[in-house]
Amino acid sequence: MAESSPVRFGILGFANIARKVSRAIALAPNATISAVGSRSIEKATAYAKENGYPSTTKIYGSYEAVLDDPEVDAVYVPLPTSLHVKWAVLAAQKKKHVLLEKPVALNVKELDVILEECESNGVQYMDATMWMHHPRTAKMKEFLSDSQRFGQLKSVHSTFAYLGDTEFLENNIRVKSDLDALGALGDAGWYSIRAILWTSDYELPKTVTALRDPEFNEAGVILSCGASLSWKDGRVATFYCSFLANMAMDIVASGSKGNLRVHDFVAPFYTVEGSWIGELATSIHPAPSEHQVNTDLPQEALMVKEFSNLVGSIKGKGSKPEKKWPTISRKTQLVVDAVKASIEKGFEPVEIIY
Amino acid sequence: MAESSPVRFGILGFANIARKVSRAIALAPNATISAVGSRSIEKATAYAKENGYPSTTKIYGSYEAVLDDPEVDAVYVPLPTSLHVKWAVLAAQKKKHVLLEKPVALNVKELDVILEECESNGVQYMDATMWMHHPRTAKMKEFLSDSQRFGQLKSVHSTFAYLGDTEFLENNIRVKSDLDALGALGDAGWYSIRAILWTSDYELPKTVTALRDPEFNEAGVILSCGASLSWKDGRVATFYCSFLANMAMDIVASGSKGNLRVHDFVAPFYTVEGSWIGELATSIHPAPSEHQVNTDLPQEALMVKEFSNLVGSIKGKGSKPEKKWPTISRKTQLVVDAVKASIEKGFEPVEIIY
Repeated sequence: MAESSPVRFGILGFANIARKVSRAIALAPNATISAVGSRSIEKATAYAKENGYPSTTKIYGSYEAVLDDPEVDAVYVPLPTSLHVKWAVLAAQKKKHVLLEKPVALNVKELDVILEECESNGVQYMDATMWMHHPRTAKMKEFLSDSQRFGQLKSVHSTFAYLGDTEFLENNIRVKSDLDALGALGDAGWYSIRAILWTSDYELPKTVTALRDPEFNEAGVILSCGASLSWKDGRVATFYCSFLANMAMDIVASGSKGNLRVHDFVAPFYTVEGSWIGELATSIHPAPSEHQVNTDLPQEALMVKEFSNLVGSIKGKGSKPEKKWPTISRKTQLVVDAVKASIEKGFEPVEIIY
Repeated sequence: MAESSPVRFGILGFANIARKVSRAIALAPNATISAVGSRSIEKATAYAKENGYPSTTKIYGSYEAVLDDPEVDAVYVPLPTSLHVKWAVLAAQKKKHVLLEKPVALNVKELDVILEECESNGVQYMDATMWMHHPRTAKMKEFLSDSQRFGQLKSVHSTFAYLGDTEFLENNIRVKSDLDALGALGDAGWYSIRAILWTSDYELPKTVTALRDPEFNEAGVILSCGASLSWKDGRVATFYCSFLANMAMDIVASGSKGNLRVHDFVAPFYTVEGSWIGELATSIHPAPSEHQVNTDLPQEALMVKEFSNLVGSIKGKGSKPEKKWPTISRKTQLVVDAVKASIEKGFEPVEIIY
């Protein structure tokens, strides 16, 4: 890792989430913060200081200046979703690798513009879905893929929610129709949808049907919603996402032989196999097993590390960008779009055409 | 309890489930097995012996004979669902209190015939939904009802499943169209639907929409299915029930302030409140609390005890039958019917008219 020089990140803007990813870049052994751009150079200077950016960090008064800096290899884009297409495309054109905050785009048409630009410029694209990069995710996948322990996937439900306070529900970019029009669906729902696709080896469902009666704010932005997904082989998935419920990150997956239960996308997960119940019901046997997977770095730093590894290979060895990340990002967006379309069509089923 | 004489049960038939409830009757301090009826007196004699019935148990060669026995106060009816309306009605007419195995009826029209007969004959009706009677259920309800800890219910998902082996999937009454035409919906789905209604204080949803693509056997009996329920206030529920997945009894309920998680309708449950996650994600805080509620008797015996208490009050003190039990049974059946109707209508939403 340390053989090649670290990937030099430029950060466009300083949304709240940028704070977390900045720290992750600082923690990752193969990445460094090189530049930050903001519309206000004063604010950016204060922000860089507050967040302990290296003293060598260049502070620019515009996003363009970051993209023009030849000492920036990659950009992290935490801007409001409505600005993603503009800035991610410009970044790719300037040959900067793109780590894009989710929701990545307002719809798949926009995302395709971004992905095509990244591809034609040979830069790596990755969405910032952090839990994918924790080693527990691979461990869980191992269980799900085990035909003896988990068997065939039959059903999965995911809840991803957190409780927005008054300040959040009035002023956060996630509830502003001009900034993040997808609201809770794009933010919390993104995680549930990704989790569901992940359990299905990214096989897209045939049909997506929104659950009735989502909640909206006055501007029409989704504050809570859900959907069911079906695959035509009896496999079903449901999810609920919300800014109006206590924080939850639930995955309950039923296989023909076992179950996976996750209630936190970071902490231990639980598996159980071959369950049965006695004649006088005192408990289902066997008890679920707890799996704690430890990691030396928090998952956001592992994400930066993985992204930087890919960027390093492209820079150092002339490797091609890894297609997995744009592919699963696009599939996630397709389901997001289908849920939105189903809501708009009065909860009619929407077929996904890939 | 021991002041009055125990409630004398007659058992109609000896389905597999009767074994469990027979033991429960034996364990309950206020109940006793008085008679068992079967179409074969030889089989019934052997069965009574095998299962340690009291030597005083009268063995009858017909169900009618049990109903005609004046020393029988109440009957437990574990017959196939298609026979419930006939035998529960006859039992009520003979002034026997009715503990009815679920699914209680093929549809609400049939159930209404049973309930009306029970009401007009002044006998207690209860469906055999055992987990309702465990003290942990009351403890969980306490949490759900706590506006400070759980807040307002936003979303609930329930999975109730078990894996039928080849013998079960070919020969069990639960997969026979002439015996238990509701299949997994009536059997496993009954629990999920009851659990969902229970979280909602038995307020019926406005709309029920079946999930697409249930699995059926060759006779058209449901082997797995699911549905979404909505209440017009943003509250949503989803469930999945199946004979084709590893045993699971999941309830994950999201409130505005807390979460309830159940993975076994008997063992400990988990609550968490006011959750938050740190800036570098290592875990959601606080950790969920485990609640183990102990009981002196298994839940099936507690069910018999509660039913027998009600019967004892009617017999001894001239009390009226408790209306809670027929009411929630009917509501559960209404949702079962709506799921079935939605499946038959190609997964269209079905409005529930109460």
